[in-house]
Amino acid sequence: MPTTIEDGDNVFIFLDVKRNWIRKVKAGAKFHSNKGIIEFDDIIGRPYGIKVESHSGTIFQIHRPSQNDIQISMGRATQIIYPKDAGTIVNEAGICAGSRVVEAGTGSGSLTWVLSRIVGSEGHVYTYEVREDMYNRAQKNLKRFADMDRITMYNKDVLDGIEERDVDAVVFDLATPWLAVKEAHVALKPSRFVVSYSPTIEQVMKTCKELGEEGKWGMVKTLEILERELMVREGKTRPPTWMVGHTGYITFARKLMV
Amino acid sequence: MPTTIEDGDNVFIFLDVKRNWIRKVKAGAKFHSNKGIIEFDDIIGRPYGIKVESHSGTIFQIHRPSQNDIQISMGRATQIIYPKDAGTIVNEAGICAGSRVVEAGTGSGSLTWVLSRIVGSEGHVYTYEVREDMYNRAQKNLKRFADMDRITMYNKDVLDGIEERDVDAVVFDLATPWLAVKEAHVALKPSRFVVSYSPTIEQVMKTCKELGEEGKWGMVKTLEILERELMVREGKTRPPTWMVGHTGYITFARKLMV
Amino acid sequence: MPTTIEDGDNVFIFLDVKRNWIRKVKAGAKFHSNKGIIEFDDIIGRPYGIKVESHSGTIFQIHRPSQNDIQISMGRATQIIYPKDAGTIVNEAGICAGSRVVEAGTGSGSLTWVLSRIVGSEGHVYTYEVREDMYNRAQKNLKRFADMDRITMYNKDVLDGIEERDVDAVVFDLATPWLAVKEAHVALKPSRFVVSYSPTIEQVMKTCKELGEEGKWGMVKTLEILERELMVREGKTRPPTWMVGHTGYITFARKLMV
Amino acid sequence: MPTTIEDGDNVFIFLDVKRNWIRKVKAGAKFHSNKGIIEFDDIIGRPYGIKVESHSGTIFQIHRPSQNDIQISMGRATQIIYPKDAGTIVNEAGICAGSRVVEAGTGSGSLTWVLSRIVGSEGHVYTYEVREDMYNRAQKNLKRFADMDRITMYNKDVLDGIEERDVDAVVFDLATPWLAVKEAHVALKPSRFVVSYSPTIEQVMKTCKELGEEGKWGMVKTLEILERELMVREGKTRPPTWMVGHTGYITFARKLMV
Repeated sequence: MPTTIEDGDNVFIFLDVKRNWIRKVKAGAKFHSNKGIIEFDDIIGRPYGIKVESHSGTIFQIHRPSQNDIQISMGRATQIIYPKDAGTIVNEAGICAGSRVVEAGTGSGSLTWVLSRIVGSEGHVYTYEVREDMYNRAQKNLKRFADMDRITMYNKDVLDGIEERDVDAVVFDLATPWLAVKEAHVALKPSRFVVSYSPTIEQVMKTCKELGEEGKWGMVKTLEILERELMVREGKTRPPTWMVGHTGYITFARKLMV
Repeated sequence: MPTTIEDGDNVFIFLDVKRNWIRKVKAGAKFHSNKGIIEFDDIIGRPYGIKVESHSGTIFQIHRPSQNDIQISMGRATQIIYPKDAGTIVNEAGICAGSRVVEAGTGSGSLTWVLSRIVGSEGHVYTYEVREDMYNRAQKNLKRFADMDRITMYNKDVLDGIEERDVDAVVFDLATPWLAVKEAHVALKPSRFVVSYSPTIEQVMKTCKELGEEGKWGMVKTLEILERELMVREGKTRPPTWMVGHTGYITFARKLMV
Repeated sequence: MPTTIEDGDNVFIFLDVKRNWIRKVKAGAKFHSNKGIIEFDDIIGRPYGIKVESHSGTIFQIHRPSQNDIQISMGRATQIIYPKDAGTIVNEAGICAGSRVVEAGTGSGSLTWVLSRIVGSEGHVYTYEVREDMYNRAQKNLKRFADMDRITMYNKDVLDGIEERDVDAVVFDLATPWLAVKEAHVALKPSRFVVSYSPTIEQVMKTCKELGEEGKWGMVKTLEILERELMVREGKTRPPTWMVGHTGYITFARKLMV
Repeated sequence: MPTTIEDGDNVFIFLDVKRNWIRKVKAGAKFHSNKGIIEFDDIIGRPYGIKVESHSGTIFQIHRPSQNDIQISMGRATQIIYPKDAGTIVNEAGICAGSRVVEAGTGSGSLTWVLSRIVGSEGHVYTYEVREDMYNRAQKNLKRFADMDRITMYNKDVLDGIEERDVDAVVFDLATPWLAVKEAHVALKPSRFVVSYSPTIEQVMKTCKELGEEGKWGMVKTLEILERELMVREGKTRPPTWMVGHTGYITFARKLMV
């Protein structure tokens, strides 16, 4: 990837934690905010990581969008799996370069995006979404940022069956994940992980109950991840007053062979 | 990777959260524990994910070791970067398939292992360790589990300079990370992340102070990750009484171009 | 205390967690909100704990204000020591019925209020506030709700000296608590607690450094309290998305006799 | 209370967080530990808060036992309501000097002890315990430390009815608190709090369901309290590696008048 800002690049324009944008650079066009205007021609050809001053005197940073910047941008309109949870899903399930992963539902596509980055060109992400509006929105999001060669999108209900076999991981973000657990068992390689993300405790209880049936799953475990910032400012270091107190529980289980 | 247990495989033998082992399968040999003996010949040729009964009647699960199983096993003798923190480092810094990453110090090699899995065969991990005993131990750990084509190990002090240029991320787990920040700036591509993991607040304060100098770094942020289990047992669902309350703080900053 | 609502009572009018008010009941007058009007004459003489319907059809609960309702109401305009922290201060320092307690600064009076309830008619709270505006505001707050026989208010700087001797506890909520630690030692009975509440880590470090000098204090300990709600709703039980991530650190130390 | 150590006093002998003892001072007798012997005659007549050296050269602090020291000592053999939770129960329910409080079950008596300190000589604690062994143990604990004039102990099942009426608060630490909720409603003054402490989520769900019936209770709320230490040591300030991750959930509700 280039380290110089080019016409057509997506750039991350950063003022502060609440005011930042991903925009496509277009020669001759401008970025408008209530903190002033930046002309794209002023940044084309310059390196990423520069500071630029808007016409009204505010300093913005121009970055190459990070994986997280893009993930978060996809969730602005809907609920997404937060970076803190995505990191734990990937890590605990051992998803890595070359993995073949099934995901359902696609939602905004934000986790699909992360998974496609991790599995790389030698792996693949198969993602199922039953709702057509979500499917279309996710496709639009992903086409903008992701390498679509690594992604297969289905506009169908994962409860009707997973097409793939011998996959390395199955990740659910579903309203009723317990109904899909049997499908995950069929699709997975032995000893690999099904992962289920759910906001409520009742969902977790039902999923764990299903996972506990018939000795089909081992090492069932449910985690929640709390991320806390430490604001390091000279003489007044402290965590922020408000933090995200809950997103969802993440349940992991490993396929047993009976 | 095969889904059948073969002679020479590393297997994960699981009894419970505290009693589990990674062992190399050897035809004709036995696994011994105080819960009985398993003969490797009884599992060779069978699929991963089976349950086997020891001679004394205890049921063990035999799994393919997951990324985390291996990461944790490397840390049994020293301190490691925990999975919860490794997941956040990888995710926030946008490390993915194809990334070229510098790490210092190598420590037990547990994070090197995780990074080598994520960057894949198209990426690379360059890891620096000043202490010879640690370097040797990490090399032994990594040779057992990792694809060494993806890893370059240096037995030298990262404060003496990073050899690489235009890398996608630099990750520090050092006693004095603030002294190494300048090296990271030289090695990184513009807009990419330096990450520093430190157990104490004084280390974080010094690192953030250095990162705040001269406008060389943007979007400085320090996080801590708390992972909490929810033990879902019918009629008695609750978090466990004890949890890990602290491992380290993780500081992120993005290279600015002055 | 009466269990019937009387003319002149302070009542707690509750709609939901964000919309609730403490109001003085006045015969012939009305309570106005954007969810409708309640005539005080409709509730006078009825028991506390009733539900009443406003003219526009919204149901409100009418409660006797609890200790916490009043504490929180005092803090609406300034920062207060939160209930979660007040409970820990009282409990760890062993403040109870009959205790004589020194507090500085008074702030809004919200902790003074809590302390005056706990120490009762046989104890006493001595509270110091250097700022005249705060002193006046706290006095107004306290006169409305507290039994002033139990409270002595000083509009003076606690750094100029604590008047009292042989007190059971000293509680600081000061910008520079480390400067006041010597005064606390003079005022306290042997083996009793000084407590210091501070939002920032640098304040805590300086205070603990002062407490560590010369062997004057034992069992120095710093706590932070995280309070997390569990929203129990049938089929969708979960913690709320946002929580208070930080208020302050509370440092405790016990007076040693050299 | 005296500030000089007297024959017959209970003293708190402190070495560190894990090694500390409450012992009765007895002229002519000795305190034995594996860090050496202290002769009580060497401390009688001296002030609380002193440091003394054992015969083998270890320094101990001698303190007047604090409320928490005693509370924790009562729980050494059984499970207790932790100080962090006791503080929140007292504070949220507005229990203070003069309150009349019902508690069930008594358990080890550790919460009874805290409540008796808070309600003072003008209040009272009525405590119910169905198990005779627990009742006897709690009585022994309480007779050693508490003012028994403030406490009425019943060896009976609270489900068979609460004797008291018009009490200021009811606090449950029961296996099946939802069965006792009706009794609490009868015993309480209008608008006052029932409090229920339970380790498991299923208990909380059942209790909240019962509290939600028939409009008898308002402002139902469930909290959990996480207490985290910050170990402030020069150059290595950090939270401890392990913390208590869960004790119990605390549910509060306010009596409505139908």
